[in-house]
Amino acid sequence: MGLYRGVSIVGAGMTRFHNKLHADKTGRELFVEATLEATASVDKGFRLREAGALFLGNFTSDIFEGQGHTAAVMADWLGINPIPAFRVEDACASSGAALNLGVMAIASGMTDVVIVGGVEKMSRLNTEQVTDALALAADTSYETSVGFTFPSIYGALASAYFRKYNATWDQLAAVTIKNHRNGTLNPKAHFQSDIRTTANKLGEKDGRTFKNELEFLRSDLNPIVASPLRLFDCCPVSDGAAAVILAADDIARRYTDTPVKVAGIGQASDTIALHSRSDFTTLKATVKAVKDAYAMADVKPKDIQVADVHDCFTIAEVVATEDLGFFPYGQGGRATEEGRTALNGELPINPDGGLKAKGHPVGATGVAMAYEMFKQLRGQAGKHQVEGVEIGLAQNVGAAGASVAVQVFRRG
Amino acid sequence: MGLYRGVSIVGAGMTRFHNKLHADKTGRELFVEATLEATASVDKGFRLREAGALFLGNFTSDIFEGQGHTAAVMADWLGINPIPAFRVEDACASSGAALNLGVMAIASGMTDVVIVGGVEKMSRLNTEQVTDALALAADTSYETSVGFTFPSIYGALASAYFRKYNATWDQLAAVTIKNHRNGTLNPKAHFQSDIRTTANKLGEKDGRTFKNELEFLRSDLNPIVASPLRLFDCCPVSDGAAAVILAADDIARRYTDTPVKVAGIGQASDTIALHSRSDFTTLKATVKAVKDAYAMADVKPKDIQVADVHDCFTIAEVVATEDLGFFPYGQGGRATEEGRTALNGELPINPDGGLKAKGHPVGATGVAMAYEMFKQLRGQAGKHQVEGVEIGLAQNVGAAGASVAVQVFRRG
Repeated sequence: MGLYRGVSIVGAGMTRFHNKLHADKTGRELFVEATLEATASVDKGFRLREAGALFLGNFTSDIFEGQGHTAAVMADWLGINPIPAFRVEDACASSGAALNLGVMAIASGMTDVVIVGGVEKMSRLNTEQVTDALALAADTSYETSVGFTFPSIYGALASAYFRKYNATWDQLAAVTIKNHRNGTLNPKAHFQSDIRTTANKLGEKDGRTFKNELEFLRSDLNPIVASPLRLFDCCPVSDGAAAVILAADDIARRYTDTPVKVAGIGQASDTIALHSRSDFTTLKATVKAVKDAYAMADVKPKDIQVADVHDCFTIAEVVATEDLGFFPYGQGGRATEEGRTALNGELPINPDGGLKAKGHPVGATGVAMAYEMFKQLRGQAGKHQVEGVEIGLAQNVGAAGASVAVQVFRRG
Repeated sequence: MGLYRGVSIVGAGMTRFHNKLHADKTGRELFVEATLEATASVDKGFRLREAGALFLGNFTSDIFEGQGHTAAVMADWLGINPIPAFRVEDACASSGAALNLGVMAIASGMTDVVIVGGVEKMSRLNTEQVTDALALAADTSYETSVGFTFPSIYGALASAYFRKYNATWDQLAAVTIKNHRNGTLNPKAHFQSDIRTTANKLGEKDGRTFKNELEFLRSDLNPIVASPLRLFDCCPVSDGAAAVILAADDIARRYTDTPVKVAGIGQASDTIALHSRSDFTTLKATVKAVKDAYAMADVKPKDIQVADVHDCFTIAEVVATEDLGFFPYGQGGRATEEGRTALNGELPINPDGGLKAKGHPVGATGVAMAYEMFKQLRGQAGKHQVEGVEIGLAQNVGAAGASVAVQVFRRG
């Protein structure tokens, strides 16, 4: 089905994603920072009070900060009461889902303008505690209660993928190398060092030299986390926030002459537990969500010129590029190795560094992808700009694909 | 603004709200039970797969059950993947907010039919732990961190109300007596005993007799929880779930000849902390939300014939009946004492027993109110039926009114 009314992004902002830099900030402070940047980015001016609703993606501030009811908290801290404020939680797809709902709110006739944001302040807890908190997104009854965590869940996906397609871990390393390289070009990224530099630095400490990135990534300096995934296959624990301002197409040009249209949206669910699935090498929810988004936008996979996909673990990027129809099944890893998804490749994937290097404050990630597409399609992405792109896509995954939110964006 | 498309309820179900009866059930089991009842209630038949989206209100299963990502969990357990599934969290207004979003989803053209539900499995934790978990909905930075919890927050509201209007605690006791009486007529209610019966029973144990309900409620058998609120001013800790099936007006009669129209929706936010407010005797978010809902439904307060309001504490019911425009400010308590809100009064409030006697599994409450209005306006409310009602209202509050969701319902 189609929406009764088109919706565009007219402004976008995000904090840098990082842990230590934000040590003294609460989630609410991060969110206000991102939203004020989004407000300031609106070419012809925007006052927060023009918004008719706030949609906030946030996974579990309940655990991370001891604060629930976060949409109301953010509305208060932005000083925009009595705006209706909705917190949306679909695990790591929370703000991708919030974005879809923001679009629907405008399309329903309820309001003309909404703020959609996402935030997660994770680093107050240590890595073990964060891993446990994130595991709330998996099946508590049958998975996490027996010790399954997300590194092991995605490790299982990687093992299945290797076996089915006779693929190798080197293909995952190619994702790591590419995304960290892209991250060095993005001042908002958590990691600002490419793997070559990291290898030299860590090697030096250890009195070792590595002849190339792959040798380093294969070494004990990149330890196994959950076989076959190593440390550099996993995204970091980051704090951060992102926000976009959506307006109905019919009024978007009041705010900017270069809106970015949310041309298609899609969302789907899948079984919460892996054991209920017949195949670990595809996320069915991605396939369904993107099918709907392509149909609404009236585009095909080959029309997509740039995409942010949910690389919480390197294997997830490989699987995403196949489920989204960019590469045939079993060939996403090889395509990455061949540089086809690099910044100068035929279809740049995660030009901003992806979750892998940009960071993954989980509730913020979906909207941070929309931020990136807004910048890319307006030619404002700076050093990681992909030249001349007009159609982009974002794919935001919750858990191991039990929720997936997709958007297709088009230069307005 | 108006919605592009009208929306009606065509089916509704709920579990009984209780603690011990549900001791062995998980939240997902409760939600499936409620949703299957809603499905079975659709006069002309309904298959779950006809739904285009699931909206789930849930406050903090993260803390209560160690399970986040609950919308995806529920979609899985209902066997309706790949349906898009959205968890909505606005504290105790979570499912009232989810209902508003479900309406918007249909009004946007995205889908024709949605399931909106709510669930909370609270009683796995003890009362202190539950109180702490609920306090996540208040301001962690400035309120709960210094010991403020919801009984004390609503106690502050009561104190302010008493002072401003020279009101008495006896007016709150009238709410308790009325709602427990209504609860005895509702088989879904947590408490099935009126205060007279409770007084006799507890008095007997203690070798005491009470000449009336008020004498019992004033006694040490009804201890102070947070002055001036006593135990029977507070709703219980309950487990439960509720679900409604929404359909676009233009197709609602495929499902039933007696749909109940969601004629108006409203939602608003207010400051998260009490200290930011100038007046504790009104919830500004209620005033704003109901203004919008009345405008959309084109009704006035005097048109409302039955209402479920958010009586998490007795004072909240009194304040609600004023903020909703049913009684002048300062007179809601007296109106209750005079029986004007009783089942046979001029405007029955909480005929189902309210949160006070029916129970308050927080994420389920907003949709349970819609369930009650669906039954009332179709004349199916059994022993607590209000005769001949055609227009009803639900008011669902998050925290101390930092979020409020309102709906006006009309017999179709």
